[in-house]
Amino acid sequence: MLTFSETAQWLAERDNFIILMHRRPDGDAVGCAAALSQGLREAGKTACVLYNPEITARYSVFVEEYWAPEDYAYQHVITIDTASYDLFPKNGQPFVDAVSLCIDHHPSNSMYAEYTCLDGSSASCGEIIYEILMSMSGAVSASTAAKLYVALSTDTGCFEFGNTTADTLRIAALLIEAGAQHRDLNRMLFRTRTRSRIAIEGMIYSGLEFHFSGAVAISTITRKMMEEAGASEDDVDDIASIPGSIEGVLAGITIRELTSTEDCKISVRTSPTVNAHALCARFGGGGHPMAAGCAMQETVAAIKTSMLAVMDEFLP
Amino acid sequence: MLTFSETAQWLAERDNFIILMHRRPDGDAVGCAAALSQGLREAGKTACVLYNPEITARYSVFVEEYWAPEDYAYQHVITIDTASYDLFPKNGQPFVDAVSLCIDHHPSNSMYAEYTCLDGSSASCGEIIYEILMSMSGAVSASTAAKLYVALSTDTGCFEFGNTTADTLRIAALLIEAGAQHRDLNRMLFRTRTRSRIAIEGMIYSGLEFHFSGAVAISTITRKMMEEAGASEDDVDDIASIPGSIEGVLAGITIRELTSTEDCKISVRTSPTVNAHALCARFGGGGHPMAAGCAMQETVAAIKTSMLAVMDEFLP
Repeated sequence: MLTFSETAQWLAERDNFIILMHRRPDGDAVGCAAALSQGLREAGKTACVLYNPEITARYSVFVEEYWAPEDYAYQHVITIDTASYDLFPKNGQPFVDAVSLCIDHHPSNSMYAEYTCLDGSSASCGEIIYEILMSMSGAVSASTAAKLYVALSTDTGCFEFGNTTADTLRIAALLIEAGAQHRDLNRMLFRTRTRSRIAIEGMIYSGLEFHFSGAVAISTITRKMMEEAGASEDDVDDIASIPGSIEGVLAGITIRELTSTEDCKISVRTSPTVNAHALCARFGGGGHPMAAGCAMQETVAAIKTSMLAVMDEFLP
Repeated sequence: MLTFSETAQWLAERDNFIILMHRRPDGDAVGCAAALSQGLREAGKTACVLYNPEITARYSVFVEEYWAPEDYAYQHVITIDTASYDLFPKNGQPFVDAVSLCIDHHPSNSMYAEYTCLDGSSASCGEIIYEILMSMSGAVSASTAAKLYVALSTDTGCFEFGNTTADTLRIAALLIEAGAQHRDLNRMLFRTRTRSRIAIEGMIYSGLEFHFSGAVAISTITRKMMEEAGASEDDVDDIASIPGSIEGVLAGITIRELTSTEDCKISVRTSPTVNAHALCARFGGGGHPMAAGCAMQETVAAIKTSMLAVMDEFLP
């Protein structure tokens, strides 16, 4: 396990890096990959990011200038924010067993890399990248700071989620002073909702169902709703948090039709008194105690019936 | 005009303070009044807050222990976050022309107090109270820090609004280190929505109107909608940010019926290219460049017509 300064030293002694993000890359992954590339380039190194086929429009803009050319002759493979091989993107399979350095903040990291820099107490992997780049160069540029701000802010719901720490806020302040345009970034990442997002949210609110005296809320997102609202994947990015955010709700369940009306993804968000992981495990899924999910090849109506039938066992 | 340290000195030399909040007190006003009372009490002073009849349940919990007794023999009147006499609560009228100290962050402050401590660059008045208390006592207690966290976080939409600065984030980090339970506070202030809030939001989304090719969005909240949703003041606390948060919208206007269908409050939120203050000043109101408001004794329909008629002058 490397410290921040050992990791900085490790990077300083090497060159020609390729950086991998995990599947369905989020703002932390994208921000870290882009910031590390930019920071390494400013330190005179060559660094690129492996193209990730699951990148969404929302985040692509931050990382696209760093995509590795087809014939890029890299020497060292770095993963960021990626706890295990399971999370590698499809085109990352050739890199399995070839990772030189993993920089991560997930305590569950399987320690698959030759070298690992892990800080499980960081809200975002971006905070770790910041410390490493500061250790390496003593400063971050405005361009690097902007990408790190994307990482910190998106992983903490703009500093609102429970993972936010005093360090997260302090580093965010330093990034703003380094030139991150937080006003524009916040507007882009958090405050700007598309008209289709507003439309799908309105439909979700109208369709909310409450059970068990309001302790369980179920939200449904059908293919038909997505189509009517003209909604994209970016529009429903964090929509699973809606039912769980309502007063009195202990378990918020979001059922979403994916490829057909009998192919659904279920997301569960709970208060500390309900074990979301255990509930989802009953249906072949899993996750964290307060945020878990599962997949079911049934209709929304059938899934509601199945889940409500066992709910009693999981409510306090 | 007093500096932070002069203000600390001013307070240290006096005793028996009564603190006034403005009408419809928001989280910044409540957090500042409670934190200043608590901080002064910890410094051995007597300090109370004048009861504010417009306090809502959401914020009452933070300040109710500081309400002044009926027979409180105060010597010095302090206002916080209150730019002018117009904003005094009804029961604050006897204090007009008797304000010894005003602590505020509104550049438009009318300088009505005998002494004024004003920092127009602070996102929240809470940041100023923090600096004054630090100057006075060298530290803030966990109890004071919690109240200041309420002030900073609510005035910046949990650090997401454009008024947030590096200093806001740095002070928030220090408040967390001083013992503010930001996780519980964030959950209470930002992540829990009532069923009536969800209902009124759904209605607002359905009723949104777009003008000027989507550059202007108008949201309406009628008394009838409030009644149907069973919504309280707390439910519509920050609802003025909705229309301005939609992609492509440069000016988001929220028109709300108050005591009758011809008594409306208008809130305007804009992107940097539109001057919200100037627009509202046209209708007898004012505020900040990107967040302002006014009051009009007309119907929603008449207000829409009047505002849309002049909108051209304010759009880029």
